[in-house]
Amino acid sequence: MQLTESPTTNRPELDYIFHPRSIAIAGASNSLFGGGSLLLMPLLSSGFKGNIYAVNPKETEVLGIKCYPSVRDIPEPVDYVISGIPARFTPQLVEDCATKGVRVLAFFTAGFTEKGEEDGKRLEAEIVDIARRGGVRLIGPNCMGIYCPASGLSFNAKHPQQSGPVGLICQSGGNAVYGIAAAAPKGVLFSKAVSYGNACDLNECDLLEYFAEDPETNVITSYMEGTRNGRRFFKVLRETARKKPVIILKGGQTGVGATTAASHTASLSSPKEVWDALIRQTGAISVDDIDELTDTALPFLYMNPPKGRNTAVVGIGGGAAVLAADVCANAGLSIPPLPTEVRERLQKFTTSAGNIFNNPVDTQSFMIGPKQITQTIEAITSWDGIDLLILHLAHEDNMIEFGMNKVFLESVVEPIKASGKPAAIVLHAVSSARGWQAVFEEQQQCLQAGFPTFISVDRAAKAVSRFIAYHERKDLEIDL
Amino acid sequence: MQLTESPTTNRPELDYIFHPRSIAIAGASNSLFGGGSLLLMPLLSSGFKGNIYAVNPKETEVLGIKCYPSVRDIPEPVDYVISGIPARFTPQLVEDCATKGVRVLAFFTAGFTEKGEEDGKRLEAEIVDIARRGGVRLIGPNCMGIYCPASGLSFNAKHPQQSGPVGLICQSGGNAVYGIAAAAPKGVLFSKAVSYGNACDLNECDLLEYFAEDPETNVITSYMEGTRNGRRFFKVLRETARKKPVIILKGGQTGVGATTAASHTASLSSPKEVWDALIRQTGAISVDDIDELTDTALPFLYMNPPKGRNTAVVGIGGGAAVLAADVCANAGLSIPPLPTEVRERLQKFTTSAGNIFNNPVDTQSFMIGPKQITQTIEAITSWDGIDLLILHLAHEDNMIEFGMNKVFLESVVEPIKASGKPAAIVLHAVSSARGWQAVFEEQQQCLQAGFPTFISVDRAAKAVSRFIAYHERKDLEIDL
Repeated sequence: MQLTESPTTNRPELDYIFHPRSIAIAGASNSLFGGGSLLLMPLLSSGFKGNIYAVNPKETEVLGIKCYPSVRDIPEPVDYVISGIPARFTPQLVEDCATKGVRVLAFFTAGFTEKGEEDGKRLEAEIVDIARRGGVRLIGPNCMGIYCPASGLSFNAKHPQQSGPVGLICQSGGNAVYGIAAAAPKGVLFSKAVSYGNACDLNECDLLEYFAEDPETNVITSYMEGTRNGRRFFKVLRETARKKPVIILKGGQTGVGATTAASHTASLSSPKEVWDALIRQTGAISVDDIDELTDTALPFLYMNPPKGRNTAVVGIGGGAAVLAADVCANAGLSIPPLPTEVRERLQKFTTSAGNIFNNPVDTQSFMIGPKQITQTIEAITSWDGIDLLILHLAHEDNMIEFGMNKVFLESVVEPIKASGKPAAIVLHAVSSARGWQAVFEEQQQCLQAGFPTFISVDRAAKAVSRFIAYHERKDLEIDL
Repeated sequence: MQLTESPTTNRPELDYIFHPRSIAIAGASNSLFGGGSLLLMPLLSSGFKGNIYAVNPKETEVLGIKCYPSVRDIPEPVDYVISGIPARFTPQLVEDCATKGVRVLAFFTAGFTEKGEEDGKRLEAEIVDIARRGGVRLIGPNCMGIYCPASGLSFNAKHPQQSGPVGLICQSGGNAVYGIAAAAPKGVLFSKAVSYGNACDLNECDLLEYFAEDPETNVITSYMEGTRNGRRFFKVLRETARKKPVIILKGGQTGVGATTAASHTASLSSPKEVWDALIRQTGAISVDDIDELTDTALPFLYMNPPKGRNTAVVGIGGGAAVLAADVCANAGLSIPPLPTEVRERLQKFTTSAGNIFNNPVDTQSFMIGPKQITQTIEAITSWDGIDLLILHLAHEDNMIEFGMNKVFLESVVEPIKASGKPAAIVLHAVSSARGWQAVFEEQQQCLQAGFPTFISVDRAAKAVSRFIAYHERKDLEIDL
């Protein structure tokens, strides 16, 4: 619910929200799940360089930080306030922030329009009104706020302190926490992430405009549940998608999903058909689940654009090869048959019995030795009929014991690099914590070699296909 | 390629293939990836009670087992032979087996029709012909053969030695190994599994007929790439699906997938439309990936049939709730809104701020304490407007540290059991080996309490929806 028109956002100007010089936590407390541990702890452990203050009339100190009765009582200037106080006290807090000259107020506090009751709507309208008059920008309410590792801003003590080139605009706090945590081991790190909840002031359009211009962000990811200004959103998304890839997961695409989104962030969802049309017309990239946000960012970070869709799939297992062929075809990749000369080259060092020297290639060379693995990759990449490689490797306990996965990875890196062809590596745990441990270790091994990893051929194929489609569209735009 | 008509299979009679009194491994050797470790080791470690012999003219002993130059040289009777010898020697082996009175010969050996060359086809026809004349049944070629834990028959040393009520008919050896390994931690154990490769003699129809009558099998799962007798397959599948749930993953549903299937097991695939029609008409359950085979078996093993499709979804996270609503709706489940009395009951012990007291329920009661978790489940299950529950729980490192997952699970078991309503529990690791370790531990905790677990709401919703559809169809059949 937006009562007054949002002030036009000056893009470089919005950068200040990510670089506060001092922060106060309103509602910081010493109770286990109070604002103390939830809001203050991440800031303390993320290396924020400026002053941090606690605000709570009932506490004198929280986690070693001096506590003031009100924001107005803090002796130094405060740029940024995070609110963990109950909703009914928020109008006074906004007044205090305006008086104090606070520039940004992020509301972890919930209990506004999303409740679906008149009092919540009124309260949200009231805080927006006070903030507009007082020159305070609001994030939320009902959100986690800002994560900006370069500034030491964080809403989760476990989030990486390293920055990366990905921006995240996330309406859901939980999905932001999940998205950042799950992305890290795959090598997806963030320049900034904003969980923006009800979007009563700063909204998805402002943030898209910001990330479009932010030199620290090359790829934009987003989870959103709705927009309150469809026309502006369409325009901003189209303009942003022309500058950088924008990968979006839209929650609330079904009837009951939309109802839930209304209860969650007071979002007004559009029917799926409208969303699909918007995606086609803007050139943004739509994905189907939260893990695909990360998966789809990966090729943009770790792959050169393939020249086409001709893909060689290489791994162990005939049934796995059949299923890999199906998911690649369904994702829109081409799997051309290997020509005779490549097949003959493969047959020189490994038997055709139990292997498939077609494409996908099922080769027991992985069981013979490193030299044969290298030769297999060389034979396949030497053919100019393929534009990229997808390698897949299941982590069954037997294979881990024999050390076969590590040998495989060590043997494929050099020949792939020498070929200059883009490659995605699928590392798939079968059934055990031990398998997953091996996958996490080898993800790092692959990242250090410069290759993105995925946990299924299906996820790899979809991500790579979307990456290729993005560049196909770019080429069309240049041609037009 | 089936040259002569398969002998009519007497079902109880086929049981002998799972209960050999003695086994010989042809081609057992002491080389690292020879038939020694690959074929002999699993038998030695799986507790097979009968005699085991090795056959190899070049060895005298393999892994402590006496080695004979030929099957004919073994002094005692041999029921079952597993072949790891090169394809060109197989006609002589079949002759020897016929002479020796061997009843079943399973060919790990590949290099037959699936090679796509005339010599392979001829060789396969030749061994079938010799076997038919000599009264030997063949499994494969190009397969892993039989896993039957009750008999100590296994093709993988890591597979469980405990039996369960699920049968597996799997054309791919690799997919059989994967399927059995990945199913075990989820509580899916097998009565018998058969990897049957090229199906030159015993085929999917014979095995479906067997499992339809097998008293040790309640649920049949299958990965198949094609059939050579569509009319018989349709008839057998329909008859079997009337007796027991038959869950099938069909590989080779795309053009390139079908080509790969031909190279893998010489299978002739049908277009996707034909397969879909066959599934509708037979009442079998079609799934989309190999993990869904296990997922879809789970409700049949660990759930009573829900009375309808009205589902309550409960977990932490508003964005997670929105996405859960979407995937449940897409899977065909209904998510009815909670009535006022349930919402009021929930509001008595937890605040509405930051929670969603709609359905899906996003409740911070999980962060407050065990009593509130129990009360939440009681309030929801007490409403007769829901037929089943899906609970979801992400395993973020912070939550694992606080021990929140274990508290959650301990607090939900009793109220769900008391309600008598079926429930699926989603345990979802976020980003770490530690998260997966916790998931594997809690899977066991849930299984002991009698609840199936899934790794995403999407997978749970699809599996439960298919389970309900199976029973809806059964009810229709009874009505007709």
